[in-house]
Amino acid sequence: MKATIITIGDEILIGQIVDTNSAWMAQELNKIGVHVHEIISISDEREHILSAFAKAESQSDLVLITGGLGPTKDDITKTTICEYLNDELVLNQEVLEHVTRLFAKYVKDPMVDMNKAQAMVPSRAEIIKNDFGTAPGMWLENNKVIFVSMPGVPFEMKEIMSSGVLPRIMAVPDLPFIHHRTILTAGQGESTIATRIEEWESNLPLDIKLAYLPSLGTVRLRLSTTGKDKNAIEKAVDDQIVRLYQLIEDIIVGESNEESLVNQISRLFKEQNKTLATAESCTGGKIANLITEIPGASAFFRGSTVTYATESKVDILGIDPLLIEKHSVVSHEVAQAMAVAAKNKFKSDYAVATTGNAGPSKGDSDASVGTVFIGIATENESFAFKFMMGNHRERVIQKTVNKSFELLQKEILKKASN
Amino acid sequence: MKATIITIGDEILIGQIVDTNSAWMAQELNKIGVHVHEIISISDEREHILSAFAKAESQSDLVLITGGLGPTKDDITKTTICEYLNDELVLNQEVLEHVTRLFAKYVKDPMVDMNKAQAMVPSRAEIIKNDFGTAPGMWLENNKVIFVSMPGVPFEMKEIMSSGVLPRIMAVPDLPFIHHRTILTAGQGESTIATRIEEWESNLPLDIKLAYLPSLGTVRLRLSTTGKDKNAIEKAVDDQIVRLYQLIEDIIVGESNEESLVNQISRLFKEQNKTLATAESCTGGKIANLITEIPGASAFFRGSTVTYATESKVDILGIDPLLIEKHSVVSHEVAQAMAVAAKNKFKSDYAVATTGNAGPSKGDSDASVGTVFIGIATENESFAFKFMMGNHRERVIQKTVNKSFELLQKEILKKASN
Repeated sequence: MKATIITIGDEILIGQIVDTNSAWMAQELNKIGVHVHEIISISDEREHILSAFAKAESQSDLVLITGGLGPTKDDITKTTICEYLNDELVLNQEVLEHVTRLFAKYVKDPMVDMNKAQAMVPSRAEIIKNDFGTAPGMWLENNKVIFVSMPGVPFEMKEIMSSGVLPRIMAVPDLPFIHHRTILTAGQGESTIATRIEEWESNLPLDIKLAYLPSLGTVRLRLSTTGKDKNAIEKAVDDQIVRLYQLIEDIIVGESNEESLVNQISRLFKEQNKTLATAESCTGGKIANLITEIPGASAFFRGSTVTYATESKVDILGIDPLLIEKHSVVSHEVAQAMAVAAKNKFKSDYAVATTGNAGPSKGDSDASVGTVFIGIATENESFAFKFMMGNHRERVIQKTVNKSFELLQKEILKKASN
Repeated sequence: MKATIITIGDEILIGQIVDTNSAWMAQELNKIGVHVHEIISISDEREHILSAFAKAESQSDLVLITGGLGPTKDDITKTTICEYLNDELVLNQEVLEHVTRLFAKYVKDPMVDMNKAQAMVPSRAEIIKNDFGTAPGMWLENNKVIFVSMPGVPFEMKEIMSSGVLPRIMAVPDLPFIHHRTILTAGQGESTIATRIEEWESNLPLDIKLAYLPSLGTVRLRLSTTGKDKNAIEKAVDDQIVRLYQLIEDIIVGESNEESLVNQISRLFKEQNKTLATAESCTGGKIANLITEIPGASAFFRGSTVTYATESKVDILGIDPLLIEKHSVVSHEVAQAMAVAAKNKFKSDYAVATTGNAGPSKGDSDASVGTVFIGIATENESFAFKFMMGNHRERVIQKTVNKSFELLQKEILKKASN
C-alpha cells in the first residue's frame, strides 16, 4: 500500500512550526507495511489543495490529510474535500453532541453557529471520533483510494490515528509487508565500504534497496524490501545479509533495529531495573531532555543538573574547587567527579556527565574548542574519556550527546549480559 | 518570488528523522521576502525526482533541493539534475582540491574514485562552497527558474544557505516584500472572535490574508500580504490593524512579532543583563532545553536542575522535607521554595520552578492529574501560581512550559520598563 501525506496550512510553509506530525505518521505507517511515497506541505488555498488531492490520488492507495479543520474562514479543508469528491456537507448528530459536551465542559463563551459547523461533515465520510477536540477525523473512499482528514494538532492527530485510522488500515486485506534490516558498521567511511561491497551491491535483486546512513563515525547499511509473502521477503533480505557479513565482517559491530539509541537505553535500564542521572555542562540538558521525552522515563530517570558555570559545579554538585583548580574544569578528573556526584546526589545506579568546550569561544577553561570529557559512573566504578569533537558548536554538542548514549549503552549492556 | 523546497531521501519518508531543514529554510526565505509555496519530500527514485523537478519548475521561481549528494550509489540527485537539465557532469578542480584537503585532514582511509566523484558537478552549475563537507552547493538556472542543490546534513545546508544562497537570492532584482503583523488576543475563543470581526474579515482586500492561530488560551490573528512597494503593503496592513483594534480592543493583549516567546525572553534577559536558572520537576528539563538551544544562552542562563523524585528536591535543591510533608510536594509552598532554591544555588537574578502531576498516573503526591504549580523568584520577591492543565500528559507539559515562559516574560518586561 502506497501513501501520500498532505499537510495543509501556512505554519509549516513560513517555518513557524516544524512538521513533526508527518514523521510520526510515517513511522507508524511503516510499522504496519504502508510505504509513504511522498509528503507534501501546502497552504490553505483551494486550487492548491485540489491539485494536491489529484496528484495524491493518482499515485497512492491512501491519502492522509492534516490541518485546515478549524471553525474559522481560513480553514477550508472540508469544503475543498467536498468539492473534490463531488460531495456535500451534512450535519452529523453524534459530532454535534460531542462538540456541545466539550463546550459545556471547557469553554466560557456560548456556542455559535461556527462551532456547530464543526459537526458538518461530507455525507460520504465515516467519522473517527476525536476525544481531544471539536474536529472529527473523517474517512472517505474515492476510486478505491482512501482519503483520511484529521486536525493538525499533534495530540489530536495521534489519538485519531492510533484509535481509528491505523486499525482500519490494518484491516485492509492483502496489505503487503515491509521488511528492513540494518547493519551497523564502524571504522570505515561510506565510500570505502561501498568500494568493498561494490560487486555485491550491483547484483542485489531489484526489489531490495540498499541505503548508506553515515553518522559521525558509524555507517548503517539498511536493506529494505516489500512484498505480500512475509516469509519470502524476510528470507530474501536475510540471504543478502549473510553475504554482506562475508564481505565486511571486520567492520560490522552489530545489527541496529530502527529503535533509536535513547529508546534502547531506556528499555535496557527499565529491564535491568537500574536508575540513571545526568550532570551536564556543555550539552546543556540535551541528554536529559531526550530521555525525558520517552513516556515512562520517570521509572528509571532520577534527574539531572545543568551546570554551565564553574561555580555551579561547586555549588550544586559539590565538586571540590581544588580539583577544578588543579586539573581545570574541562578535564578527566572533573568529568569523573561530576558523574560520581550526580550518582550520589540523585541516589541513582548510573550517571553520565559532560564537560567541554563546544565553542564558538573559549569558556571557563583553557581547553581548545571541541575538547570534551564524558564521565561515567556505574554501580562499581567510575571513569572518563576525552574526545576531540571538531570546531562546529552544534556538531560538538550532538556528537557528545551521541557518544554519551553509546557509552551508557555499553555499560548497561554489560550489566544485561551478566 | 515563489519557492518550492524538495527533500530527497528515505529518512524522512520512513519517519527516521524529522524534517527540521525545511522549517529553517522556510523561516530564512520568509525573512527576505520569498514565499514558500510547497514543501515536497520524496525518495531517491529517478522518476520521482524528475517529476518533482518538473512540478516545482512549473510553479516556482526558486527550487531548493536537499539530500542525495553522498558518494554512494543510492545518491542520485546530481545525475538526475543533469538528466533533467540536459547537462553533464564535469570535474571541478576547486572542489577536488577541497575534498582532497578534507580527506588528508580528517579521514584515515585513502581517497577512492567515489570520493573524487564528489568533485564532478553539472557543467552549468555555479559552485557554492561547503566548508563542512565534501558535497558542494550548486546553483543552476533553467527557463529563468533557479535550482539550488545542497546536502541534507543540517549544519552543512545551513552554512551553504547563509553564506552562499541567501545573499545571492537577495541580489535578485525586484524581489517582492512580505509583510506580516500578528495581533495577540486572550480571553475569547477563535469562533467568538471570528463572529465579532465577521464583517471586517469579509471586506478585507483580496491580497491581505488573515489566519487564526489558536494556542492554549490565546488566539493570534496574523495579517499577511506581499508586494513590490514596501511602504504600500505596510500601510495596507497597518490600516486594517487599526480597524481591528476598534472592533476587539478589549481582548487584544499585545502585538506578537514572529519571534518565539523563548527568543524574546532570551533577548530581554541579555538586554537587562540579568541571569536565570530553573528547577524543573514535571517539565523534565524542557524549559532549560528550549533556552539552551538558543545560541549565546550561556550569557544569561546559569543552569537547571531536573528533580523528578521528591527526595531529589531535598538532596539537590535543599528543600526542607518538613515543608514537603506539611504541604505536599505539589503545592504553592514547594514551587516557591524550589524557585528560591534555584536562584540561590545558581546565584541567578531570576528563577522559575515547576512541580505538578502531568499524569498519566499519580506520582509522589495526592494532587489530581493536571495540577501544576509554577514558582517564580525575582530579584526582590518570590511567588507561585496554581494551574489546572487538563488530563493529557503531553499537553500538560507543553502548557506548563508555555505558561512558565509567559510568567518569566511578564517579570523581565516589568524590569525592562522600569
